Amino acid sequence: MAQRIAKQDFSEWYNSIIYKTEMVDQSPTRGCAVIRPYGYALWEAIQKEVDTQIKKVGVQNAYFPLLIPESFLKKEAEHIEGFAPELAVVTHGGGKELEEPYVVRPTSETIIYDSFSRWIKSYRDLPLKINQWANVIRWEMRSRPFLRTTEFLWQEGHTAHAGKEEALIFAKQILEIYRQLAEDFLAIPVITSEKTANERFPGAETTLTFEGLMQDGRALQMGTSHLLALSFPASFDVKFQDEAGAMQTPWCTSWAVTTRLIGAIVMVHGDTRGLVMPPKIAPIQVVIVPIGKVEQQPAVQAQAETIKADLEKAGIRVHIDNREERPGAKFFHWEERGVPLRIELGARDMESQQVVMVDRLADENAKQTVPWATLTQTVIDQLASLHTRLFDRAAQFRQDHWFKAETLADIAAKIEDAPGIYQTGWCGKTDCELELKTVKASVRCLWKTPEHKNCFACGAASTGDILVAKSY
Amino acid sequence: MAQRIAKQDFSEWYNSIIYKTEMVDQSPTRGCAVIRPYGYALWEAIQKEVDTQIKKVGVQNAYFPLLIPESFLKKEAEHIEGFAPELAVVTHGGGKELEEPYVVRPTSETIIYDSFSRWIKSYRDLPLKINQWANVIRWEMRSRPFLRTTEFLWQEGHTAHAGKEEALIFAKQILEIYRQLAEDFLAIPVITSEKTANERFPGAETTLTFEGLMQDGRALQMGTSHLLALSFPASFDVKFQDEAGAMQTPWCTSWAVTTRLIGAIVMVHGDTRGLVMPPKIAPIQVVIVPIGKVEQQPAVQAQAETIKADLEKAGIRVHIDNREERPGAKFFHWEERGVPLRIELGARDMESQQVVMVDRLADENAKQTVPWATLTQTVIDQLASLHTRLFDRAAQFRQDHWFKAETLADIAAKIEDAPGIYQTGWCGKTDCELELKTVKASVRCLWKTPEHKNCFACGAASTGDILVAKSY
Repeated sequence: MAQRIAKQDFSEWYNSIIYKTEMVDQSPTRGCAVIRPYGYALWEAIQKEVDTQIKKVGVQNAYFPLLIPESFLKKEAEHIEGFAPELAVVTHGGGKELEEPYVVRPTSETIIYDSFSRWIKSYRDLPLKINQWANVIRWEMRSRPFLRTTEFLWQEGHTAHAGKEEALIFAKQILEIYRQLAEDFLAIPVITSEKTANERFPGAETTLTFEGLMQDGRALQMGTSHLLALSFPASFDVKFQDEAGAMQTPWCTSWAVTTRLIGAIVMVHGDTRGLVMPPKIAPIQVVIVPIGKVEQQPAVQAQAETIKADLEKAGIRVHIDNREERPGAKFFHWEERGVPLRIELGARDMESQQVVMVDRLADENAKQTVPWATLTQTVIDQLASLHTRLFDRAAQFRQDHWFKAETLADIAAKIEDAPGIYQTGWCGKTDCELELKTVKASVRCLWKTPEHKNCFACGAASTGDILVAKSY
Repeated sequence: MAQRIAKQDFSEWYNSIIYKTEMVDQSPTRGCAVIRPYGYALWEAIQKEVDTQIKKVGVQNAYFPLLIPESFLKKEAEHIEGFAPELAVVTHGGGKELEEPYVVRPTSETIIYDSFSRWIKSYRDLPLKINQWANVIRWEMRSRPFLRTTEFLWQEGHTAHAGKEEALIFAKQILEIYRQLAEDFLAIPVITSEKTANERFPGAETTLTFEGLMQDGRALQMGTSHLLALSFPASFDVKFQDEAGAMQTPWCTSWAVTTRLIGAIVMVHGDTRGLVMPPKIAPIQVVIVPIGKVEQQPAVQAQAETIKADLEKAGIRVHIDNREERPGAKFFHWEERGVPLRIELGARDMESQQVVMVDRLADENAKQTVPWATLTQTVIDQLASLHTRLFDRAAQFRQDHWFKAETLADIAAKIEDAPGIYQTGWCGKTDCELELKTVKASVRCLWKTPEHKNCFACGAASTGDILVAKSY
């Protein structure tokens, strides 16, 4: 029976399984990993889903230069302070030392606002909703594939709106698109809420986040949506004439999800048998393993192809494994790669017109017999059920690891042995927030339902609950 | 009546139209342009088409680091010699000077072969077919949006095969995919052939190319597919055990198309009225212009929405222009942007249940009346016809600008006034090829049907015809 991963083994398990299943490879570039096809396929599926949803709310894709003049980053004081330690700098180009160095984009607000300053003249040009699919670089000393790498892939959305309320509503609309992506597509339950001032994006007035809880009890920030401070677009002279003829600065949002989501899929759903792919994003949803040698079983082969064609007609991603390997080795291979459903088909099944079907979450020996006639519908139902079971299991795990704490001492006494989400009260002061460093934890977000009267750190009146956790 | 662009006005026309139609914008990064949504939409369509076709021949997408250790490029002598003058170099990262600088990838053979050296062990691992969608940097002193920019977007495919013949067949298969993309999707007739040794990719044994002829008589290399010299993978220790147990170096291919294709679309099809979008790639295929004020014409609005929904059901991309502008200004706007078909719908048309339809290639006054009942089919037919007319027009232009020449003097006498493709004989020597610099032209490719007995430069026996042109 497959087990969840014990927290003391988690880090090693993660680092091992992503290499074994050929999702990533090492690279000669410090802090960077190669994303192999089995990992990249997940990113392609995420791209397709996010791209479809953001286009529905009027976002258009564009592309801005990778290299940003160093002086641009310095125009917004908070922004450069936040990113300076992480920059990669191009000092030479075309065989010469450059007069002004370029930084490789760590994010693109600065160069995009330069364009916005030309594209936006009047209220009629608003809202302006732009997104780019791109690579970014933030220098990392301690990297881990997908979760924290010097280079990563993302989409970065940038919008400008005439009013603050409208901009904030849009930032929340994007957060809702992200929530649906996580919960309905990746089967990962997430908390959506707001960051504290200390945890905000450098230059933002509000940072919204969605956070998942990994199997080792650590939280993962899976993506963010920001309302920028008005000073940020103003630094780049972005302004518009309103209906009354007055010049105003637009309110801007920016928002992103990254290849980090691939790490979340691995960390939330995996087990001691390997990866477990959420059905909607699984690169292969059904693997068919014909039993017996290919050349000796033409009828089995033909039937496998028929089943594949039928399933593909229903939009299901199917692979037939005809490698020269024993069936047991093939079963192990695809289980480790987390393929949701396996279909076994041998000579015996030809007469009875059925297959054996095994579900990735079932016990190893729980084999189900399914007649050919009802196979497509059974597969559709089973994939839907698997999505629900994965989501429910992760939601149950989160509920089991959601604790209430009154004081820092309460948290300190428990969080090492029982990592998870600690809900507590907070006075709103950053000094108190920073006390969490003593337990190597942080505020993941504010929490809407207050249940605590006092700040966990100073004991003063709480202004609202917060969720505290160790995090990636 | 719209005219083709005169060659003396061509460069100015190009630089003006791509800004006016909001395909690109200037950027603060030297040699780079911002690709705006109306330009980027073309790249998205190209991506989708190429991605679909290469996956059908077994290619899988992956992602490799942007930054390549400088030492990697130096492992292959020809390769570094070719790219050294164009490199952007990262010397500082994370606030420190790096021990070894990184170059921003100008192409990724070196870092990909490093991975191949680990992924390929046996003949069973071959063929290996990998592609990545990425940005690359090649420092440009004189840039022009889409055609030649310091940063550009592309796909780069990299494959490894057990045998040379198999690898060359695959490189040709990709060239055929590219030809179909150009001719069947972009309506651009292309010449597919082989480059001379002097024009090969640095490190390639064979470079295949597809070349289009622009309206000013200059050729554009639209993409290439290479068979790499065996020494290239060997420099990275890529090897496999063959069926007999012997260690061998695999034959590798690499191939790419870039955002340059967007420039080709503009330069081949545009006219004095602006862009002309080939129907299959047009971001908007049909624009509906309701005549009269939105709020005063609820029935016209409702009918416009019905027509849009009907056309969209047939897979057609439709936009309704309800801006507060005069109809004439709207017509001009969409003509300039090259939208293939315009539908006008006013109060008069409601009773007669018809629309007025105008085709982008027709005379300005050639309006066609189409009943609602047959509109969808008429639009489908008209779009197909427009594709054919665009292709045929470009093919006719190429035929009219394809000249035969015996000597360099023949070419020199004519090529300035009548730029185009000059077919001539060649002895095969690079020294003779380089004589073409005197007329600011180059060999675009070898030509399969020999018609000349002597080399255009030295007069020695020709070993085969070549196609000579001025080029981008």
